[in-house]
Amino acid sequence: MSPEPLQTLYWEDDSLFLLDQRLLPGEIRYLQCCTVADVVTAIKEMVVRGAPAIGISAAFGVVLAAKAAGTAGSGLSGLQEAITALRSARPTAVNLDWALRRMERRLEHAAGGTCEEVVDALAEEAQAILDEDILTNRKIGAHGAALIPDGASILTHCNAGALATAGYGTALGVIRAAVAQGKQLHIYVDETRPLLQGARLTALELLREEIPATLVTDSCAGYLISAGKVSLVIVGADRIAANGDTANKIGTYTLAVLAQRHEIPFYIAAPCSTIDLSLEDGRGIVIEERDPAEVTMFNGQKIAPAGIDALNPAFDVTPAELISAIITERGLLQRPDRAGLKNLLTKGER
Amino acid sequence: MSPEPLQTLYWEDDSLFLLDQRLLPGEIRYLQCCTVADVVTAIKEMVVRGAPAIGISAAFGVVLAAKAAGTAGSGLSGLQEAITALRSARPTAVNLDWALRRMERRLEHAAGGTCEEVVDALAEEAQAILDEDILTNRKIGAHGAALIPDGASILTHCNAGALATAGYGTALGVIRAAVAQGKQLHIYVDETRPLLQGARLTALELLREEIPATLVTDSCAGYLISAGKVSLVIVGADRIAANGDTANKIGTYTLAVLAQRHEIPFYIAAPCSTIDLSLEDGRGIVIEERDPAEVTMFNGQKIAPAGIDALNPAFDVTPAELISAIITERGLLQRPDRAGLKNLLTKGER
Repeated sequence: MSPEPLQTLYWEDDSLFLLDQRLLPGEIRYLQCCTVADVVTAIKEMVVRGAPAIGISAAFGVVLAAKAAGTAGSGLSGLQEAITALRSARPTAVNLDWALRRMERRLEHAAGGTCEEVVDALAEEAQAILDEDILTNRKIGAHGAALIPDGASILTHCNAGALATAGYGTALGVIRAAVAQGKQLHIYVDETRPLLQGARLTALELLREEIPATLVTDSCAGYLISAGKVSLVIVGADRIAANGDTANKIGTYTLAVLAQRHEIPFYIAAPCSTIDLSLEDGRGIVIEERDPAEVTMFNGQKIAPAGIDALNPAFDVTPAELISAIITERGLLQRPDRAGLKNLLTKGER
Repeated sequence: MSPEPLQTLYWEDDSLFLLDQRLLPGEIRYLQCCTVADVVTAIKEMVVRGAPAIGISAAFGVVLAAKAAGTAGSGLSGLQEAITALRSARPTAVNLDWALRRMERRLEHAAGGTCEEVVDALAEEAQAILDEDILTNRKIGAHGAALIPDGASILTHCNAGALATAGYGTALGVIRAAVAQGKQLHIYVDETRPLLQGARLTALELLREEIPATLVTDSCAGYLISAGKVSLVIVGADRIAANGDTANKIGTYTLAVLAQRHEIPFYIAAPCSTIDLSLEDGRGIVIEERDPAEVTMFNGQKIAPAGIDALNPAFDVTPAELISAIITERGLLQRPDRAGLKNLLTKGER
């Protein structure tokens, strides 16, 4: 077991290299993205996934589009089209839009420079988004660790780890920080159907760092929580509306309902870039529906009878009232609400 | 599509033939059980599953044991050992014990006869258990159909269908009966990890009878119910304690919690043989823990990193307070409690 975390993505040789998460845990292989189209496809097909990692990938996608435009001598006219393609690659995680807006602002400031200068500015911005993400996650971890009692048994869903970010992770960042403080934890990992990010990715991260973990099916949560085996639930987020309603991987809402019934805390760990004040509440969050074949097939094997209809929403929305606290890089927001979220974003505004 | 339901099991040529449910939906193949050991293994390995079907299989297992004893000229001395092996094949479903107790009573009555007479008596009893099961399910269906509104959208979990019984099914029997009354229904089918009885078996039964159905992951229930897409939940049961607490496939409890939060009915459909008055409440129900490899592997493929720990409880317990009604062959028991269950069993006692 290597204590070295897997690197989700990096920029080298004018290319974006993405760890192909579809192949984990069986194989560690990086996919080289040389064009913005490569990046769009990689995001859609979930080579890279996790709200922060998607945002960072999209930022580098803009760099690739700018480079291509420069090389072609077509100026930067095609760039907005590339940004639009990146923005619509996946609809639910707002971090994608957030990163692209940062890139657009940088583009505006750099306008007037040569193509090469613009590309350099964009590359610098994308790298800054990447670097800041790791720092952000370490701050989330530090704030969140205060909520984790020594000896806690923690249930998590999907992968909100190093692999969902540039490194360290959000929900798993909190767990890493608590472990670094010497706390003894036990993690229950929901396998997270249909794409098994829990079984494939979260289990892998915890195993590599020798954090005690037990894999369970998603259906097992009610059993574990009602048996008193879970001290708290912690997950990541894909979009947080102005009132605190939070979209995250399908199945999250159910965990929040179970946590409330059994009076254990339910925490969201996410960077402030996940907060979308433009949406009044969770009803405005677009829930991505993915290919039903993700449900009816498994690794190329058909698991359901041919001809059966299937539905595959990738996210659900947990109402703010079920969330004990949102853990961000700017601190904790207990019992999140509209005023608290606005205040959180305003106080640290640069 | 054939409207003919698949036959779960049948007795022919002095053997028990079990539809090998591990191979469905891909392949329809019957496993011939010639010895009681074959039956024990088939129950353990879930060639046959579903509380009523396990009970019937065990009854025929006793016939096979008696025949073998007769042929060996060893008398019926080894029979109690065979019954013990059958009884312990799986711990949670009480129908196994119920069927074996019926066989034991018949054995007592037949004692004094020749070996051949005893075997004949036991074979007659096992066939009676099988035949009565289908009639029982049709009665459950008739009683339950009254609870199903026309146009209802129904969520079910695991397989409580023809394949879990001698035919027709319990929860799916209620759905079949409502459809036969001309009601338009839509069924959401939980895939039911780890062994996918929903995706493989329930989807197959509904598809063959052209009942509109949509397959979803188990995690999807919260999304569907909170979106108002589910009118009611109906499932089977493996053991019902004296106060109404009910063990059923892992994940059932979570559905009951969600149903309560969103104020939709949660129904259990099961024969009276599932009621175990010897247990005060659900705390006494033994929950089977199955091989963790059912979680970490899928059809021979490893889906989680090597070395990860996994937990695989096969059932959970839903407290009586979350159950809107238990549907049995003797009628409906709304808001089940100790007095109601006792009354239900007493009123029809022969």
